Amino acid sequence: MGKTCLLLEYDGTEFYGWQNQPHHNTIQQTLEKALYTISSHHLPIVGSGRTDSGVHAKGQVAHFQTPNHPLFKNPQLIQKSLNAVLPSSILIRKVCFVDDDFHARYSVIAKEYHYRLVSGLRPSPFLERYCYHFKGKLSLDWIQQGMTYLVGEHDFISLANHGRHYHSTIRRILNISLKEQQDHLLITCKGSGFLYKMVRNIVGLLLDIGAKKIPPEHIPFILEARSRKALPSMTVPAHGLSLDHIDYPEAYHHLLCCNDKISSKEEKTNFSL
Amino acid sequence: MGKTCLLLEYDGTEFYGWQNQPHHNTIQQTLEKALYTISSHHLPIVGSGRTDSGVHAKGQVAHFQTPNHPLFKNPQLIQKSLNAVLPSSILIRKVCFVDDDFHARYSVIAKEYHYRLVSGLRPSPFLERYCYHFKGKLSLDWIQQGMTYLVGEHDFISLANHGRHYHSTIRRILNISLKEQQDHLLITCKGSGFLYKMVRNIVGLLLDIGAKKIPPEHIPFILEARSRKALPSMTVPAHGLSLDHIDYPEAYHHLLCCNDKISSKEEKTNFSL
Repeated sequence: MGKTCLLLEYDGTEFYGWQNQPHHNTIQQTLEKALYTISSHHLPIVGSGRTDSGVHAKGQVAHFQTPNHPLFKNPQLIQKSLNAVLPSSILIRKVCFVDDDFHARYSVIAKEYHYRLVSGLRPSPFLERYCYHFKGKLSLDWIQQGMTYLVGEHDFISLANHGRHYHSTIRRILNISLKEQQDHLLITCKGSGFLYKMVRNIVGLLLDIGAKKIPPEHIPFILEARSRKALPSMTVPAHGLSLDHIDYPEAYHHLLCCNDKISSKEEKTNFSL
Repeated sequence: MGKTCLLLEYDGTEFYGWQNQPHHNTIQQTLEKALYTISSHHLPIVGSGRTDSGVHAKGQVAHFQTPNHPLFKNPQLIQKSLNAVLPSSILIRKVCFVDDDFHARYSVIAKEYHYRLVSGLRPSPFLERYCYHFKGKLSLDWIQQGMTYLVGEHDFISLANHGRHYHSTIRRILNISLKEQQDHLLITCKGSGFLYKMVRNIVGLLLDIGAKKIPPEHIPFILEARSRKALPSMTVPAHGLSLDHIDYPEAYHHLLCCNDKISSKEEKTNFSL
């Protein structure tokens, strides 16, 4: 039957993360319930990875085995039906059919996370659910210098919290950048994969560097120590973090690309005196 | 003593609008309480105008008589003290001292409102508090044609809800436009002033035009009828509306201009491989 693939976004504020847990409201559970509501089939969902409690997503990807059910012949119908029963905190942006070779988790090539923060003044009321308020002053130059030490392949075990087991703790950071948006700072981090709470520890480390508590050139020593104890920084709060985009092999690009369909409209125009 | 002027923004979701009301939580009341907390003075606040229940603001302006109190010698200190006691849904962006000639309401030259909506697909979870979901299809071209009939000076009584009294119901719309943002449609409307729920009635009318229920060239007849009964459209929901900006005489521009102070930082840089 092949697989059905979902591109989705969610406000993670009210969820206990992605993965099913007893007595807690999770994204995976909410999606599986919605699938059951529209199909009367229990369809286990596989996500690209777990997002932690309170973490948001703009570009999460998940798959499930396509059931033999009339609704599941038409991707637009699946999307419409799911969006009609899901809470407003979860939106399915695209549905497509993929072959059995595709796996939302094992086919991942890279993931891109966004971390939003403001320093100094409180965040705008419109951003505060998605933006960490760092109260100190920051040297963006020091943060930039720190970033250069993180790019590339390293053993990142010093930047991982305990609680997961890995075959290898070596990961590759492809790109890390800091941009000033209109009313916040945006840290973008793209990598082959990430250890448990690694992005939030990277940001915590970069903020300690920006606050001039740790010199940028100290990063190699933290990495070489291969221990979380070598990292004096905090794991920054979940609500600033968003899983923004996932890269899959080129064969799937056209399926997962979403031309933000903002309006069912006939033509595009605008008018201003 | 002169006046103290506030530039502020708020998420209106949890408030019963701007104006003080018994037994209801309003913006004005919350600000006056915060001023009392920091100064032990009851300082009545005058806003640029009332925003309705559920309406947001990015650029609201208000003033109060500066009290004889040590805290009220320093605008930054007032801002910091107010932001420390206000809820996260209200943010003071700037505080400045103005002469007694300034009046937050009577000195207004023009106001600009933003209305956000999506048609078709549900809004993103990150926008749904600030964005109306119009379920039908829209012709943006028809909306554009409709806008041309609204610009300029007209008697807008047909586009006002009952509940207020006016010396005159003539207002001037300086600019009205429709723009496609990344994931929503933005209607911007700037005018010399607005009657009760006029912006939300304008948007309701434009959506009926976009849905091809009303032809654009029918607008002059609605205006000429000088009666809300001549307008078949709904008043669109409050949560899509935001008071974005207020124009005051040029003498006050430098005081009210806010260089979005997003971070207490030393320098600006960014880095990306």
